[in-house]
Amino acid sequence: MIEVAVDIQGADNPPSELISGVFDALNDNKDLFVYVCGDKAAIEQAVSGKAYDKKRLAVIDAPQTILNTDNPVDAVNGKKDSSLVSAVELCRAGKAKALVTCGATGAIFVAAMLMLKKIADCPALLCEPRKIDGTPFCIVDCGANVDCRAEKLVSFAKLGCAYMKAIGTEKPKVVLLNNGAEDKKGSALTKKANELLRASSVDFIGNLEGTQILTGEGDVVVCEGFSGNILLKTMEGVALGVLKEIDTAMNKLGIDSDGYKKLHDKLYKKYNYTELDGAVLLGFSAPIIKGHGAATAETVYHIIKSAYILARNDISEKIRQEI
Amino acid sequence: MIEVAVDIQGADNPPSELISGVFDALNDNKDLFVYVCGDKAAIEQAVSGKAYDKKRLAVIDAPQTILNTDNPVDAVNGKKDSSLVSAVELCRAGKAKALVTCGATGAIFVAAMLMLKKIADCPALLCEPRKIDGTPFCIVDCGANVDCRAEKLVSFAKLGCAYMKAIGTEKPKVVLLNNGAEDKKGSALTKKANELLRASSVDFIGNLEGTQILTGEGDVVVCEGFSGNILLKTMEGVALGVLKEIDTAMNKLGIDSDGYKKLHDKLYKKYNYTELDGAVLLGFSAPIIKGHGAATAETVYHIIKSAYILARNDISEKIRQEI
Repeated sequence: MIEVAVDIQGADNPPSELISGVFDALNDNKDLFVYVCGDKAAIEQAVSGKAYDKKRLAVIDAPQTILNTDNPVDAVNGKKDSSLVSAVELCRAGKAKALVTCGATGAIFVAAMLMLKKIADCPALLCEPRKIDGTPFCIVDCGANVDCRAEKLVSFAKLGCAYMKAIGTEKPKVVLLNNGAEDKKGSALTKKANELLRASSVDFIGNLEGTQILTGEGDVVVCEGFSGNILLKTMEGVALGVLKEIDTAMNKLGIDSDGYKKLHDKLYKKYNYTELDGAVLLGFSAPIIKGHGAATAETVYHIIKSAYILARNDISEKIRQEI
Repeated sequence: MIEVAVDIQGADNPPSELISGVFDALNDNKDLFVYVCGDKAAIEQAVSGKAYDKKRLAVIDAPQTILNTDNPVDAVNGKKDSSLVSAVELCRAGKAKALVTCGATGAIFVAAMLMLKKIADCPALLCEPRKIDGTPFCIVDCGANVDCRAEKLVSFAKLGCAYMKAIGTEKPKVVLLNNGAEDKKGSALTKKANELLRASSVDFIGNLEGTQILTGEGDVVVCEGFSGNILLKTMEGVALGVLKEIDTAMNKLGIDSDGYKKLHDKLYKKYNYTELDGAVLLGFSAPIIKGHGAATAETVYHIIKSAYILARNDISEKIRQEI
């Protein structure tokens, strides 16, 4: 069994709405076991009468909720019966191999730092978009580490390689996000990082400019957290913006074929990173997949699936091998 | 007359190919006067028999070319008869009010620094994309100033406001590119810049995330040059990538209406910043519009038009007013 702990509280939508994502994930993966952490009475009411394998779901009673407005340290220390702390505790104790949450980012970091073992120098936030041709790649760091030293970018590269190996890319290639393709170009940080990556154990193939982000070579895009956040959010904003622009124009042109509608929906899902995909916090003894606060049941389904794949392919062992 | 100096050499394409962009610009704007700087014999051969107002074009003989491979300082000091140095000299002497070039970026900067008067603390590179709804806005700095202090971002904001006023936006609003919308979020640099912008004379309305770049409020997007370069190139790469993806799918679907083709071509031009639009170097006594090395006659036409508008609306005076 692959055990995943799910914090079902702390998102905008109520557990009763999010829970159907858990059923879908259970029905999809026959060796998935889910611990659902939250208010037991509410969860049991939501699950009653639903079709799922009861042997593969356990409810952990954790009625408290950590809010976005809570002080993260106080909340993690004070709300021991919160859904988040209970889910992290299952990972700490080795009962769950991955954690899924749509709760407050600050509290998630604090809980991981206080309760889990660090297995990398610098835990980082990773996202996995798709290129134009559908190939997955990852961007790391996406916003957890702002203002960091060049050495950390090598650590990010290793976490990214471990991640790509866990999702099936045997020999991941690493690129460095930069304002120029040449090795000597860049900010003080990226020039230094380029040197360190060249000297490191990862398969570093050079710098990558923004123009190449969806078409260029490379499985792991390495960047400092500020740039990574700008990169990822701009990708989403521009892709969805252009899609909307085309959609409006196509409506005016009277082109409303079923084929086009399906294409639009497919691309909307592909580039809507915030709505469906989670960000992965890597570098602790268990991977933590964080969904957006406005997560739906579909988001929960997607991020449990990611957690399941990472746990099944032992991401933590792969990180240890890289480092 | 609005006099613009055009460096017709130093791009990948030969002057004979680029020159027709000059004719188109002359025919478009009846009070435009162009100094074409380059090899006189070659230019005269290219212009002979073409339809344009001969009273509004002067050829300045400057047979030398500054190459991308030249050392910028040596080239500017040594090649006094180069098309670039001649064009900058026309601006220095007050004969031309703006400069257009598709030459080597390093040499352009050096020539401006050595030959022109600085009218802003920190000259910066500005680009002018369009939002989804077609509204123009500007991003400043786009790559000239990497690793800069927060104070410089206020200077960029002022240059951006002067630019927007010159192209017709009466009361430009300023936003700061950041990894979060809240004032307190960001890197050390953006947190400090946010404070300084709040205390400055510009109309600063807050931080902007990448998701909002094509749809959000704000006429001037302020950022440090590394982030600005990542932002602009990512916008282009993602927009053109998504367009190509849709185009391929539409071909497969057999949707090849004229309306869709026109839409595709329109959007391709809108988002292909590198091919058609220039970057504007602001902060010297004359604005310098730099086209891509792979510029075509259409690029030259576009960037002469930008230069003409900035000169006609006295961008330099607007910069002095802001600062």
